Amino acid sequence: MTQNIYDDETFFAGYSRLPRSVHGLDGAPEWPVLQAMLPALAGKRVLDLGCGFGWFCRFAADEGAAKVLGVDVSEKMLERARRETGDAGVSYERADLESFVPQPGAFDLAYSSLAFHYIADLAALFGRVHAALKPGGALVCSVEHPLLTAPARQEWLADSDGRASWPVNGYLDEGKRVSNWLAEGVVKRHRMIGTYLDLLLGAGFSLTKLTEWGPSPEQVAAEPDWAKERARPYFLLLSARRG
Amino acid sequence: MTQNIYDDETFFAGYSRLPRSVHGLDGAPEWPVLQAMLPALAGKRVLDLGCGFGWFCRFAADEGAAKVLGVDVSEKMLERARRETGDAGVSYERADLESFVPQPGAFDLAYSSLAFHYIADLAALFGRVHAALKPGGALVCSVEHPLLTAPARQEWLADSDGRASWPVNGYLDEGKRVSNWLAEGVVKRHRMIGTYLDLLLGAGFSLTKLTEWGPSPEQVAAEPDWAKERARPYFLLLSARRG
Repeated sequence: MTQNIYDDETFFAGYSRLPRSVHGLDGAPEWPVLQAMLPALAGKRVLDLGCGFGWFCRFAADEGAAKVLGVDVSEKMLERARRETGDAGVSYERADLESFVPQPGAFDLAYSSLAFHYIADLAALFGRVHAALKPGGALVCSVEHPLLTAPARQEWLADSDGRASWPVNGYLDEGKRVSNWLAEGVVKRHRMIGTYLDLLLGAGFSLTKLTEWGPSPEQVAAEPDWAKERARPYFLLLSARRG
Repeated sequence: MTQNIYDDETFFAGYSRLPRSVHGLDGAPEWPVLQAMLPALAGKRVLDLGCGFGWFCRFAADEGAAKVLGVDVSEKMLERARRETGDAGVSYERADLESFVPQPGAFDLAYSSLAFHYIADLAALFGRVHAALKPGGALVCSVEHPLLTAPARQEWLADSDGRASWPVNGYLDEGKRVSNWLAEGVVKRHRMIGTYLDLLLGAGFSLTKLTEWGPSPEQVAAEPDWAKERARPYFLLLSARRG
């Protein structure tokens, strides 16, 4: 089973204070780019893997999706998601994505925001997601960019001109990474971009879009503290199609 | 026109002494991985974009390719390529890849090793390459990984544990980069992985493989000086298909 860090009291309290937890999709700076990768949702059946507080499930319902199923391993997150969701077309299910089997051929869109970098057996999950999509269905997802998951220490360094530089090491050595983000001992899985693509193509998907997201110049103008965030991408956004 | 740095005396002399110039494909550590991405060559028509000394053209001929056309902007490289090539099925043409128009629908494979990161208008070149392939034809290529082309200074830093770390900065700011590799003022183009994929998919290709190449553990065991080269990938290898 994947570590269920979201039900850790300290982690949950910290996570609940993040802008994306308070403001939802509008608090997630990568959302406009991820949104642009989505197909039209009206009348569609949508699966959200790692749905958290249900922000995307409610967005999909508001866009006219016919049915939305949100899946998450965290009891605490689903409890809030259920409380804040009024739409009868949205349902939630508690499950570990390592073993969750969505109904085959049932969905037009599988969506996942920042969950897949926790998954140990992503090949198996991509296989089940591929099977759960109708032919022509789409997978749209985000993960931490491998430049974030690779290094042993997530600390900015200065090059010999004093330029803020992100230290990359361990990139080719994939596998478990333990970080202390919001709580001690958060376990993530580092994979290269090439490996994410091997897993997608190997599951039978064709790639439709890959974006290495960092803040736009306009976002940096609005949030000057983010200037150095353009030194390297922060999220990896992917969309793929079941042929 | 792309800068023709290979005809610079100093650059050419330095380049001619590199292991890959002396030993050919066997002197290029990424070659086994790139080779594994190639289709069978027997009876095929092959285009090599940026063919240099013609090592790959001769390899393709040895594998039974029916016709091989090597294209390069460098007079000096083509002069040596012609001198060292005996196979009548191989021909060479001097051209700038920024404007070269290969014959439409004529090739089964377009190959390019470490040339595309010099190209300013890669969208246009990918379009002409797509048109030059037969349906089902393949593009297999390598470029410097964007982690190499991004930073202002290509210098290793140490993190606070002393771990050799590659300094990433400027990754999101694409465009011209001037380096002093073998000669002063070598002009390359930095593009994100996402941009290479946008250009391929936008030209009509479907992605078949993306590899972020660094030396394997076996290669590091044989060349212990390469240990830190596993901190980050060095080359980006791509294969795509014309549908």
